Amino acid sequence: MGSTIPPAQHARLLCRQNLLTNTAGIAPGYLQANLLVLPAKYASDFHDLCLRNPVPCPLLGMTADPGDPSAVRPAECIQSSDFDVRTDFPRYRIYSGGKLMDSRSDLVEVWGNDHVAFLIGCSFSFENALTAAGLPPRHQATGTLVAMYRSNIPLLPAGVFTGGNCIVSMRPYRPEEIEEVRAITRAYRLTHGEPVAWGWDGARQLGIVDVNKPDFGQPQTFKEGEVPVFWACGVTPQMAVEAAGDKIKGLVFAHEPGHMLITDLTSDALQSSKPRNI
Amino acid sequence: MGSTIPPAQHARLLCRQNLLTNTAGIAPGYLQANLLVLPAKYASDFHDLCLRNPVPCPLLGMTADPGDPSAVRPAECIQSSDFDVRTDFPRYRIYSGGKLMDSRSDLVEVWGNDHVAFLIGCSFSFENALTAAGLPPRHQATGTLVAMYRSNIPLLPAGVFTGGNCIVSMRPYRPEEIEEVRAITRAYRLTHGEPVAWGWDGARQLGIVDVNKPDFGQPQTFKEGEVPVFWACGVTPQMAVEAAGDKIKGLVFAHEPGHMLITDLTSDALQSSKPRNI
Repeated sequence: MGSTIPPAQHARLLCRQNLLTNTAGIAPGYLQANLLVLPAKYASDFHDLCLRNPVPCPLLGMTADPGDPSAVRPAECIQSSDFDVRTDFPRYRIYSGGKLMDSRSDLVEVWGNDHVAFLIGCSFSFENALTAAGLPPRHQATGTLVAMYRSNIPLLPAGVFTGGNCIVSMRPYRPEEIEEVRAITRAYRLTHGEPVAWGWDGARQLGIVDVNKPDFGQPQTFKEGEVPVFWACGVTPQMAVEAAGDKIKGLVFAHEPGHMLITDLTSDALQSSKPRNI
Repeated sequence: MGSTIPPAQHARLLCRQNLLTNTAGIAPGYLQANLLVLPAKYASDFHDLCLRNPVPCPLLGMTADPGDPSAVRPAECIQSSDFDVRTDFPRYRIYSGGKLMDSRSDLVEVWGNDHVAFLIGCSFSFENALTAAGLPPRHQATGTLVAMYRSNIPLLPAGVFTGGNCIVSMRPYRPEEIEEVRAITRAYRLTHGEPVAWGWDGARQLGIVDVNKPDFGQPQTFKEGEVPVFWACGVTPQMAVEAAGDKIKGLVFAHEPGHMLITDLTSDALQSSKPRNI
């Protein structure tokens, strides 16, 4: 059976059955997505937040109609007719009043008749490209979670979302590797693109005092002479929700970090610099 | 003659003949554009800079082929076949090595065979909407230039453009007017959209110590109880060029502040939230 199912759809079915958890390294070449689900009355503001902050919040797609967990636009994002955003991520988080309340394997019982889901680009995509170029991210070699930090780059406000800063992920590289690392990841415009800062000066500019104390994920080891390189991170939208607090009425859902959706978009499709109508 | 020429084209002809200088208030309802012109080898990086920083650098259009000053895409941006980006702004600035070198009324003698021109949205558009709603910007009432400041919001790097901060413009409003002011300007996504910060706390967050000492333009008067409201500003791309310094070889051109291009795009066209392929 598996041989006739496209690899991304196969991975989604495994996630739906909770046979897959962490999706790092799954279905190489296919784009993975972060999730944010909101009541419809906040969907326009969140859409604006993505358009105004496309580096931390690159919009890959969204559900087409409030309450409908199946249809996604643009259509090339998810091509299987049985898709269900409530089940096809491996694991979900539930927020209320800006606070994390619960974690569960599907959203079937909590999904409302006006929820709208947003799919946000994830840096897993460009990590494959870095590895292919002989520049593998340290956290893959060490089997750790990537280190993430709250930066002082403000999210530009959009409607009800008036707070929160950009979260950044960090991978160590040697100074002479940075221009190649920048060039490789630049093309991945829908999955955060090139770094936002690099070097020890870059860390200071982002307000990061101690790279050995990440706010999320795990500390990374530095080899001699290596410096930190920082990319915008898809956890950022969750920070915007936390900052909005009880201005948002009703339940908000997100993916559990590392537990992504495998989409039908390919890395090749990312090479285009054209913004798409979403 | 004037009655048969569309108003935007009529204004461009006056600018071409240098019969118009400051374009504030000219051809209401038509979008005005900031300009940045670069040698073709930097065009991809600057295009990326706009896509990664769409609030200060909203891309309205660009010339279609290096060296050709006439054809603009998308076509709806400029609909007259005799358009020439070297003459149809009232006044231009010339940069070399990141430094302002000269100001002149056309670019005919300095335009090279590989120059590419970018048209960037301008806040003149949403000012008309604010005035129509009974919330006229103070600088219009007092006949001054809008106050502009260097903020601490970093431009997210793109290729050769690795420095510079967002420039913000400021208009005073009463606190109880701010939500309406935000809602009105939110729709103008291609001309900086809603404010990036407001209130005295907002000024501090942007790193602005004294609103009475703007970095560009003129100080604005505050009536009792009014607070500053800040929007991203189209002067920002010039800061990116200055920050790039002598990493950019060859001449760079920009408009003279306040001396904009009148495009054929209308304010109505801005109400769409859809990004366009440019």
